[in-house]
Amino acid sequence: MHIARSTKCVAVQDTFWKKYKKIVAEEVIPYQWKALNDVLPDTEPSHAIENFKIAAGESTGEHYGTVFQDSDVAKWLETVAYSLRDFPDIKLEQNADEVIALLGRAQAEDGYLNTYYLLKEPNNRWTNLRDNHELYCAGHFIEAAVAYYETTGKSELLQIMERYVALIDEVFGPEEGKLHGYDGHEEIELALVKLYEVTDNRKYLRLAQYFIDQRGQRPVYFEEEKEKRKQINTAPTWNDEENVNFGLGFEYQQAHQPVREQQEAVGHAVRAMYLNIAMADLAAKTGDVNLFETCETLWDDVTAHKMYITAGIGSSVNGEAFTCNHDLPNDSMYCETCASVGLAFWANRMLRLDPNRKYADVLERALYNGTLSGMDLDGKRFFYVNPLEVNPFQGARKDQEHVKTERQKWFFCACCPPNLARMIASVEDLIYTQTENTIYTHLYIASQVQTTLNGQEIGITQTHEYPWDSRINLTIQTEEPAEFTIALRIPDWCKQAVLSVNGEVISLEDLDKGYAKHRRVWNDGDIISLILSMPVERVRSHPLVSMNQGQIALQRGPVVYCIEECDNGGGLAALRLPRNASLEDQFIPDLLGGIVRIQSEGYRIGEPQSLYYTGEPEHVPHTITAIPYYAWCNRQKGEMRVWIYED
Amino acid sequence: MHIARSTKCVAVQDTFWKKYKKIVAEEVIPYQWKALNDVLPDTEPSHAIENFKIAAGESTGEHYGTVFQDSDVAKWLETVAYSLRDFPDIKLEQNADEVIALLGRAQAEDGYLNTYYLLKEPNNRWTNLRDNHELYCAGHFIEAAVAYYETTGKSELLQIMERYVALIDEVFGPEEGKLHGYDGHEEIELALVKLYEVTDNRKYLRLAQYFIDQRGQRPVYFEEEKEKRKQINTAPTWNDEENVNFGLGFEYQQAHQPVREQQEAVGHAVRAMYLNIAMADLAAKTGDVNLFETCETLWDDVTAHKMYITAGIGSSVNGEAFTCNHDLPNDSMYCETCASVGLAFWANRMLRLDPNRKYADVLERALYNGTLSGMDLDGKRFFYVNPLEVNPFQGARKDQEHVKTERQKWFFCACCPPNLARMIASVEDLIYTQTENTIYTHLYIASQVQTTLNGQEIGITQTHEYPWDSRINLTIQTEEPAEFTIALRIPDWCKQAVLSVNGEVISLEDLDKGYAKHRRVWNDGDIISLILSMPVERVRSHPLVSMNQGQIALQRGPVVYCIEECDNGGGLAALRLPRNASLEDQFIPDLLGGIVRIQSEGYRIGEPQSLYYTGEPEHVPHTITAIPYYAWCNRQKGEMRVWIYED
Repeated sequence: MHIARSTKCVAVQDTFWKKYKKIVAEEVIPYQWKALNDVLPDTEPSHAIENFKIAAGESTGEHYGTVFQDSDVAKWLETVAYSLRDFPDIKLEQNADEVIALLGRAQAEDGYLNTYYLLKEPNNRWTNLRDNHELYCAGHFIEAAVAYYETTGKSELLQIMERYVALIDEVFGPEEGKLHGYDGHEEIELALVKLYEVTDNRKYLRLAQYFIDQRGQRPVYFEEEKEKRKQINTAPTWNDEENVNFGLGFEYQQAHQPVREQQEAVGHAVRAMYLNIAMADLAAKTGDVNLFETCETLWDDVTAHKMYITAGIGSSVNGEAFTCNHDLPNDSMYCETCASVGLAFWANRMLRLDPNRKYADVLERALYNGTLSGMDLDGKRFFYVNPLEVNPFQGARKDQEHVKTERQKWFFCACCPPNLARMIASVEDLIYTQTENTIYTHLYIASQVQTTLNGQEIGITQTHEYPWDSRINLTIQTEEPAEFTIALRIPDWCKQAVLSVNGEVISLEDLDKGYAKHRRVWNDGDIISLILSMPVERVRSHPLVSMNQGQIALQRGPVVYCIEECDNGGGLAALRLPRNASLEDQFIPDLLGGIVRIQSEGYRIGEPQSLYYTGEPEHVPHTITAIPYYAWCNRQKGEMRVWIYED
Repeated sequence: MHIARSTKCVAVQDTFWKKYKKIVAEEVIPYQWKALNDVLPDTEPSHAIENFKIAAGESTGEHYGTVFQDSDVAKWLETVAYSLRDFPDIKLEQNADEVIALLGRAQAEDGYLNTYYLLKEPNNRWTNLRDNHELYCAGHFIEAAVAYYETTGKSELLQIMERYVALIDEVFGPEEGKLHGYDGHEEIELALVKLYEVTDNRKYLRLAQYFIDQRGQRPVYFEEEKEKRKQINTAPTWNDEENVNFGLGFEYQQAHQPVREQQEAVGHAVRAMYLNIAMADLAAKTGDVNLFETCETLWDDVTAHKMYITAGIGSSVNGEAFTCNHDLPNDSMYCETCASVGLAFWANRMLRLDPNRKYADVLERALYNGTLSGMDLDGKRFFYVNPLEVNPFQGARKDQEHVKTERQKWFFCACCPPNLARMIASVEDLIYTQTENTIYTHLYIASQVQTTLNGQEIGITQTHEYPWDSRINLTIQTEEPAEFTIALRIPDWCKQAVLSVNGEVISLEDLDKGYAKHRRVWNDGDIISLILSMPVERVRSHPLVSMNQGQIALQRGPVVYCIEECDNGGGLAALRLPRNASLEDQFIPDLLGGIVRIQSEGYRIGEPQSLYYTGEPEHVPHTITAIPYYAWCNRQKGEMRVWIYED
């Protein structure tokens, strides 16, 4: 384990990502602002801002929405904070300031701030940590506060949240007289580490540590709490007591055993990601190797057994949860956008502890596939659930109604759109990590970074058309010659990479955990050229993934492809990609915002007379057209498959 | 449409079926008797006999069990009636007589007989036809009464049921003042036709006709009934009002439109089968061509779009229902044993109207596959749900807990074991149908039949070792030469059949709907020899069945095969059957009660280092061993697959 930090001060200039960041700034943030203020027609009302106004005594009415409705406001604020870096916007910042002021007015005398409890059950604070997300919401506001402070220098929200955390610290902890609980949905733990980062107040780190180490201790707090709840008058929750935690036990909340003993990823996938992030963050701050090792064990379990090729996670709608190894159904899964966003964030945190490409490869896989698929190319519609296969009969499956076959405008539980938006708006924070004298390039995103290495200010400019083009240039800016190491990730998907510095080829024989490390005295204008060959690859699944056998997925560079009905006609399962067919890739500027399209000569199985038949199937020649998975369902609703039958 | 009747008086001498009939007589009937009387340890109590005792005032306590608990007694009685034909058993008959006498004592003054309402809601009879199965239970007792009368000549139960039906006829009908309802679970309709057959009382036929034609008329009766229920005090039912009919609307009960307008099989599969049987039966009695055509339309829909290769039906646990075309998941399906039993019975009824092998082929498919799989080879454990694929991760799927990976001893809802038992006990009734001068041989089951053709008593003896051996002999017994037609089904699965009479080969060029018809003057001792070649076939699915692509099923004769973990090791999805591999079939007398086993040289995909990989997979030679699907899970619990990946 080593301790690196993410390199900040990166300006994204990337064709691919800049477009998304612009969409977040111009579409998603204004749209979500309208949603939060209930001025959108034809969508579920949010009531999130209104809840705060009522709590502040500035409006009347009742709390409406989920118990975690507040967090939508927090995620919006956090996204705004990141987006303002790229797109300064005085009006938007004013809106944000006003929201923050409103939060201040809604905050209770003692610092408490949660509209559900303030309005609905003022006497029942902290009585249902299992279900009611109080600390989760606090966590998201802390993240927003830190982000807003970092971008704008304004500390109002930070102060509000520090007041709230002071209260939380009085209520929770190992000491006698405090509640020995922790939240049913992890989030505050990672947020407290962020709060520590900007305030240097170790109390926050200790509180995070307490929440982490208390989770899963026996007797499980949620049991005690449930007993105590019998003494009070409180509303039933969304978590049905008849089938509590969806039958998953305390695995649902990763509270089935102390976290350090956990060897397998279980339960609600988003919850699991947030826990893992917090564990990695704590390990980074405290040097706790045991926590890091737990993280690595869980990482290896997720990525070796429980992750879709798109970096989707959560195989089952029941509990939106992990199931067991190799259970990766493509049509009934959950693969929540939030879960893949969480996986991306976790990967970044692991890279700070261990610059191993196994983390960065997954980070990249999540970025270009299972997260972005959650939003259409206009930023106007969203998937919560990201299927890898939509069949003609999907619509008739009443028990799979969670799988939408087209993106929706807004959701009652609106966690995914803002989560994706904050990831896009801060994607630059994921590109580099650095130690004293080494800068690790994990992602190839065209950008300009300014940082300090070995005490010297240096700059690196990435220029390229990634992920479509294999040629990557990095140029060094430095006032004086500077000695440091640049570590460049050679992705696992890349079979042939060529690295040169100022035209001189550098051997890639000795990669360090997948990174080419080059130490030298760098001069201003030095050019690193990296060619990551990206022919179209046929990817297969481990043979225990029974649902993917006989099929291949197409991947080019980090981008996973799919076939869609609008390119290939219906009945996609009838298509066959011959094993020896050549796969033609071509950049099409006016298709889906500019993508590399893949085509191949294959065939379609002719329709027989009966449901079952013997004899040779008829082969009808057919050109198979594949597009990037993230861009599916941007033209017409219809069938889609990532896994294509091979012949 | 022609009108034939099933040929009765058939004595089964078949190695395959006689064994099952013996198991039903010696194991299943006594076991179920114990279950009904609650003397089994470690199983769900039934309480079914006790409910009747309480209703008769001979015991005390409350009703226990489902609203249709009574029907378990009915199905037991019906099975006993059939079984007594083969295995006379005075003690058993006494038991049955005593049960019947108990039913008589439990019957209300006015003829009513349903223990749930008699004991639980005496004032609420006929107030929830949608959910509470009163007429369904009556139907099963009518079937039992008819069967028991036909075997034993005893009419006590028939009288009890005629009294009950007289009451039902007073309550239900198109006339003013009667309830314009029908049962939420079809069954009484087909039973009333049977009652008509033995009594010749056309009132029963009219009542059946009424129930059939009333179903699905607008406004839907269940809506009216629900409104009326608001006026009374009645218990909530199993059918959750929040998600009534599992979200399937009145399709669940095939009451979404008048039955004659229905073009697609929808809703609960068992309900649909019982409706279709009744429609076919009514068509046979009334010559109603329109009803027959409706049946044929529905038949073609089921068998062309919605039936598993095992003759399983019901793709979804939600409502235990049909979904839409080609949606045939192999691991999460329902495929209730009862539904396949219903499909077999329906096929038999269709053959009485139209001797077309499309019906008999499915009848045979159901008999040798998706029905028998519901019971182990000892008759001691049962599947309710019959999966076609069990993966290592099946157990972790909380939302697929309906799929058991081993047979269970008894069920709280114990419909399947007795349903299967009555089918086995009466399998001889499915072999032949006949018109005035033609006898149709639909099934090849070694047996001796006595019947009258063209006014002459004749006998036919089938001798063979079907389904394992391709050579079938039929011998004619007749006192005097007799002219009639024998029609022999040439199964669709058979690519090469040879028919000869007394050694002279008969051309099979001109089959009539799949039947070889041979008319002649038959003499005593004439021998018909039929060779139905049964090499192992590789069967493929229609390309719209996305989950079966790239895979084949092995079928030999009518028997569908599967591969099991105990023969092939775990990780069955890793096995590959090369397209050109020869398939060796061999009869193994001491394996699974004597079966033909299939073996082939194939290979296993080696386990790669990672979940996803590029490059060629490793091929590890492996001998693939397949056994008949119906016999799976008789040695060890483990993985199983019907569909095998081909290469």
